[in-house]
Amino acid sequence: MRIGVLGTGMVGRALSGKLAELGHDTRMGTRDVASALAGTEAARDGSGTLAQWAERHPQVQLVTFQEAAVYGEIIVNATAGAASLEALRMAGEENLHGKVLIDVSNPLDFSRGMPPTLAMCNTTSLAEEIQGAFPEARVVKSLNTVSAAVMTAPEALAGGGHTMFVAGNDQEAKVLVEKAILRDGFGWKDVKDLGDIRAARGMEMYLPLWLSLMMAGGAGPMFNIAVVT
Amino acid sequence: MRIGVLGTGMVGRALSGKLAELGHDTRMGTRDVASALAGTEAARDGSGTLAQWAERHPQVQLVTFQEAAVYGEIIVNATAGAASLEALRMAGEENLHGKVLIDVSNPLDFSRGMPPTLAMCNTTSLAEEIQGAFPEARVVKSLNTVSAAVMTAPEALAGGGHTMFVAGNDQEAKVLVEKAILRDGFGWKDVKDLGDIRAARGMEMYLPLWLSLMMAGGAGPMFNIAVVT
Repeated sequence: MRIGVLGTGMVGRALSGKLAELGHDTRMGTRDVASALAGTEAARDGSGTLAQWAERHPQVQLVTFQEAAVYGEIIVNATAGAASLEALRMAGEENLHGKVLIDVSNPLDFSRGMPPTLAMCNTTSLAEEIQGAFPEARVVKSLNTVSAAVMTAPEALAGGGHTMFVAGNDQEAKVLVEKAILRDGFGWKDVKDLGDIRAARGMEMYLPLWLSLMMAGGAGPMFNIAVVT
Repeated sequence: MRIGVLGTGMVGRALSGKLAELGHDTRMGTRDVASALAGTEAARDGSGTLAQWAERHPQVQLVTFQEAAVYGEIIVNATAGAASLEALRMAGEENLHGKVLIDVSNPLDFSRGMPPTLAMCNTTSLAEEIQGAFPEARVVKSLNTVSAAVMTAPEALAGGGHTMFVAGNDQEAKVLVEKAILRDGFGWKDVKDLGDIRAARGMEMYLPLWLSLMMAGGAGPMFNIAVVT
């Protein structure tokens, strides 16, 4: 499939690289390609500057948000939560029309220091705001509950014996994401459909617990939760 | 130990009954004993009216909030989250002084319908508010992430292979709760200390995900999460 990934941070890179490796025609969108490639800051995951990453991944073309959205049959929002609505507006509402939009972002607010709070929660969620702003997009919330490294390699933890969630209003879109991307693509074995897009609230509000676990664990972001019955 | 459990709902009953069974001298506190015993509403867990429950548990004396707090060396807040601060004020600040106060409640707000939202979150939590209002109590947040039936019988799920959390400012209090109550008492095998009382935020904000899982799962409240690394 043709996939447009919005965002060039650790999450955008991990997803774009893996999706391309899986054989998907993948383009990665950013606000301004030239200035993104001129960036000198190396990502914390060891993947270097964006230019260095791009050189190692020639199969992933770096384009604008709008070009990525026009290109993709599936769109992935991997931008920082605080910038997501603006990035999607730059992508263009007409280019999201009828498309599956996988929202993997979290509305983290770092303005109060560490650990971050959520910019919205409890009575809404970022995914709900995105669905509300782009009613013709078929928003599926997923992957936001794990670090980038776990998203694309669930087998790296406990042989894959842990849980991923999906939420969204469009059942067909959820089934596509669950089957093509999560199970057959990345190798997730336990995927739980939590219901309509309002269930994204719980998925995003889990982040403070995730952050506490990361800080208390001392082993970095390579962990997840398994639902046990 | 002498334990005063505040609250006579499903959680208060499950904890009082189990603590007494474990040999702790347990009293259960309520606002008004006579009117509580006159209540005709049966609990959803099948334990009947409070009078019926009390008749089957003669070893658990039903007393006022204040009497339970005076009596207990350890106090358990098992009241409804919306009523917790008032119940603790009725228990009396002086009766909580220096005592371990296990807060198992969640600040659920049902005023907007189902599923409930949280009455406070993100920049604070009920446990932080309790610690702030009763600075001399040694507040330990725990057990709020599972249903009453799982709290006291973790082995009922997956042989106990799942996770309980604790958070609090007083290290000695956390160690006591973890060892005497959670591990040796109820049988929890995996207990994770998330840090100071601010980590209660993540534990309480997990509730919307818990509620989504319960509604999506169809198997009721007998589930939990295991942290996988």
